[in-house]
Amino acid sequence: MSTARQDQLRARRMGIDTYHEPVAFMRENCAVCRAEGFKAMARVRIAHDERSIIATLNVVRGQSLAPSEIGLSEAAWHALGSHSGDLVSVSHPEPVESFSSVRSKIYGKPFDAAALHDVVRDITAGRYSSIEIAAFVTACAGNHMTLEETVALTRAMVDSGTRLAWQQNPVMDKHCVGGLPGNRTTPILVAIAAACGLTIPKTSSRAITSPAGTADTMAVLAPVELTLQHIRRVVDSEGGCVVWGGSIALSPADDRLIQVERPLEIDSSGQLTASVLSKKLAAGSTHLLIDMPVGATAKVRSAAAADVLQHSLEAAGAALGLQTRVVRTDGTQPVGRGIGPVLEAIDVLAVLRNGAGAPPDLRQRALLLAGHLLELGGKAAAGDGIALARKTLDSGAAWKKFEAICIAQGGLRKPRRAPHRRPVVAPCAGIVGSIDNRRLARTAKLAGAPLSPAAGVELCVRLGQRVEADAPVYLIHAEAPGELDYAAAYAAAHPEIVSVKEPS
Amino acid sequence: MSTARQDQLRARRMGIDTYHEPVAFMRENCAVCRAEGFKAMARVRIAHDERSIIATLNVVRGQSLAPSEIGLSEAAWHALGSHSGDLVSVSHPEPVESFSSVRSKIYGKPFDAAALHDVVRDITAGRYSSIEIAAFVTACAGNHMTLEETVALTRAMVDSGTRLAWQQNPVMDKHCVGGLPGNRTTPILVAIAAACGLTIPKTSSRAITSPAGTADTMAVLAPVELTLQHIRRVVDSEGGCVVWGGSIALSPADDRLIQVERPLEIDSSGQLTASVLSKKLAAGSTHLLIDMPVGATAKVRSAAAADVLQHSLEAAGAALGLQTRVVRTDGTQPVGRGIGPVLEAIDVLAVLRNGAGAPPDLRQRALLLAGHLLELGGKAAAGDGIALARKTLDSGAAWKKFEAICIAQGGLRKPRRAPHRRPVVAPCAGIVGSIDNRRLARTAKLAGAPLSPAAGVELCVRLGQRVEADAPVYLIHAEAPGELDYAAAYAAAHPEIVSVKEPS
Repeated sequence: MSTARQDQLRARRMGIDTYHEPVAFMRENCAVCRAEGFKAMARVRIAHDERSIIATLNVVRGQSLAPSEIGLSEAAWHALGSHSGDLVSVSHPEPVESFSSVRSKIYGKPFDAAALHDVVRDITAGRYSSIEIAAFVTACAGNHMTLEETVALTRAMVDSGTRLAWQQNPVMDKHCVGGLPGNRTTPILVAIAAACGLTIPKTSSRAITSPAGTADTMAVLAPVELTLQHIRRVVDSEGGCVVWGGSIALSPADDRLIQVERPLEIDSSGQLTASVLSKKLAAGSTHLLIDMPVGATAKVRSAAAADVLQHSLEAAGAALGLQTRVVRTDGTQPVGRGIGPVLEAIDVLAVLRNGAGAPPDLRQRALLLAGHLLELGGKAAAGDGIALARKTLDSGAAWKKFEAICIAQGGLRKPRRAPHRRPVVAPCAGIVGSIDNRRLARTAKLAGAPLSPAAGVELCVRLGQRVEADAPVYLIHAEAPGELDYAAAYAAAHPEIVSVKEPS
Repeated sequence: MSTARQDQLRARRMGIDTYHEPVAFMRENCAVCRAEGFKAMARVRIAHDERSIIATLNVVRGQSLAPSEIGLSEAAWHALGSHSGDLVSVSHPEPVESFSSVRSKIYGKPFDAAALHDVVRDITAGRYSSIEIAAFVTACAGNHMTLEETVALTRAMVDSGTRLAWQQNPVMDKHCVGGLPGNRTTPILVAIAAACGLTIPKTSSRAITSPAGTADTMAVLAPVELTLQHIRRVVDSEGGCVVWGGSIALSPADDRLIQVERPLEIDSSGQLTASVLSKKLAAGSTHLLIDMPVGATAKVRSAAAADVLQHSLEAAGAALGLQTRVVRTDGTQPVGRGIGPVLEAIDVLAVLRNGAGAPPDLRQRALLLAGHLLELGGKAAAGDGIALARKTLDSGAAWKKFEAICIAQGGLRKPRRAPHRRPVVAPCAGIVGSIDNRRLARTAKLAGAPLSPAAGVELCVRLGQRVEADAPVYLIHAEAPGELDYAAAYAAAHPEIVSVKEPS
């Protein structure tokens, strides 16, 4: 081993996951800590060969680390690319230049495009700490972003990662603003659109805080972790796909921003617009349909909030050359019966196969959105889209296309139901008055979704429906008895998840 | 040992210092992580007996923790008060209610007093994550705080901790806005004021990012970590003291806010005002003199910034019943010769003893500020304060008082100089054109200050002074040869720290 200089320490992988935030661990009595005057939570620059990262310092008091060592969290370890025992040098980082424009923004000075480019580049490179990102997010929130700023932020985010290009044109895409459990229309839309001759290379995400993302549900039915080459083959032969987008770095700055925005729950139409549009532009899309559920426990909670967001999405989309259409939908209750990967996949299959048990609301919503998609892509005249969508679904053409896509992605799979179920029952006879989307999603997660794909919630009632006392309002599904108990305890503590009003 | 419920884990102290942010470490395959769907960086509630804390989750992959264990950082360990192996229960925290008023503020709605009270209470209780505090700080920055908000924030911060009460009246206090190395007037001011019959129970801080705080410098001369009872005895007998305030929880929310504000370097006159005034009000002061150095590399960089801050401090002080006087001073170069605890203590002693080598600038500044303090406390008419201060210093009365205070605090000590010194020399003959306060402070810290009290920098020149080529412009002092080399290398890399211009 080479000899350490005074600013050098030996790298050690700590096996500690701090998500996107690189963390370094150093002994308080180590020479570098003493000489540089580093204290806990200081930002430190760590360099090895040609690479350098900035990490947040945690100071270790115990014997778990030697004074000559520096421990690295998973994010820091991967970003630095060093090996165990490598000598790395540690120093004070230069201040992040681009943060001065964030400070100016706080004082009311708008960002220009170059400033946003530099901010996003530095965020992507891991130069911003979480509190610096929080300051950026806060400065942009409260509708403090102009359209010009939103457009420039979107462009900067597209530039921060991979950008796909397609031979085909138009390239259709779809997004749901979210917050509605079970609203799994994407696989149905892709099948209908592709069956009608549109190109729709759909990249989807896995769940972050919800019981299932589209990629989680689709993974029940077919492989979704495809190489870019494989994705291109599927799209060239079938016109569409439903794959996980995480293996392609589309708008990577977005992931880091979301990590900070989500816990703050700061609604920022500018940043939400940039987040959505940057992913779609990076995916090479030309036309975008946005499903925007509006409801008290959905992500968009009021018509006024919907107005602001819709205008931001459409105006920025137009400025960026992405034809964007927003469709507002009912966000007062879940869509379909299942919440959780397998249960949602079963609903999707039932609609595609025109099964007797297909949830009518999921079918209706999928047809409505598919109709808009067909019109947006030029396959139907205005007002005629929904009829073409219905024909494509009812004829079996959509199902045939879906089967072909699944096979092209690696094979159609059969969903396997969970072994453990327990009903939650109505406390009295009456009418279903409200459904809490957020707490119902929580129940599904406590039951194990999405890590246990068959876990989740199966809803037995709809708003306004009459129920008898002790009739099940929903079933909890779990893969393990412990998880079933856990979710059931939460459900019992929250009888308002599905509220039943006695008729007056 | 008792049996663990499904939501319980055994507490383990990790010996990891994450400063004020409580962090919990859990294995990714532990039952609670799985059941609750916790991911890295999630906020988790940890309860034991009657106490509960909220911590940020780091997920551990290795074998350093068992799946049945939860590791706690130092801040989490102390806040929870559990013992090794205790069963603690882990759950999702309820959303922090008071953060909704921060969200409203981001949208432009001013805080009311009750909202700020709740925000500060929750910050003090550790319920806010660092990114939530960053959002609060950002929402308040950019001069977005009204005077009413600033006053309410100050009151809330006072209420968050201990509040001292004194029999004496008036109770004088002094604060320096900071950023000027060596500006160690406080011990001199306290001695002069107390010698003239004023009550001045001065609580000071240790250095956080500077090479020395007043408490670090005073600790060279006398014990500063006193109990409250001991402080009262000193003040009753001598009229003044200079002690470390850290053992009394004065405005504890302030420490948490500063931890986030400092790295962001967001200038917020409202929060700076609340920070300064809350500490003084909590200390029981009735009259406050503020030294505000203005200069390009000081904390307040321009006359315009000084105007805003001065107005905020004086108006809020008036509203809170704290008589506040701001004195603007030269912030273009350090004060005195020494930077670092021992070197500053030597300067302070020289001024108090009227020694031949006393730095004239430190003496002048101390007299100016002491004069204002005597006028503010009613011991001298307007304009007569400086003459009384000079008389008190020149007569030896101030030195006698200082000796008595040191003895009452536990004994006067003799500073011990560092064994290793190295000069930094002028590259050419010429005039000293500028001095970089920040980088000079950095050099002193790299030499080991304040942990090594004798380490630091001894300045040999003043702005505008003529120097010969190779004449020393400053000396680096260190307690160890390695630290001397380290600081010298930094000094060599930054010849602009003291710039010498050849005469034209």
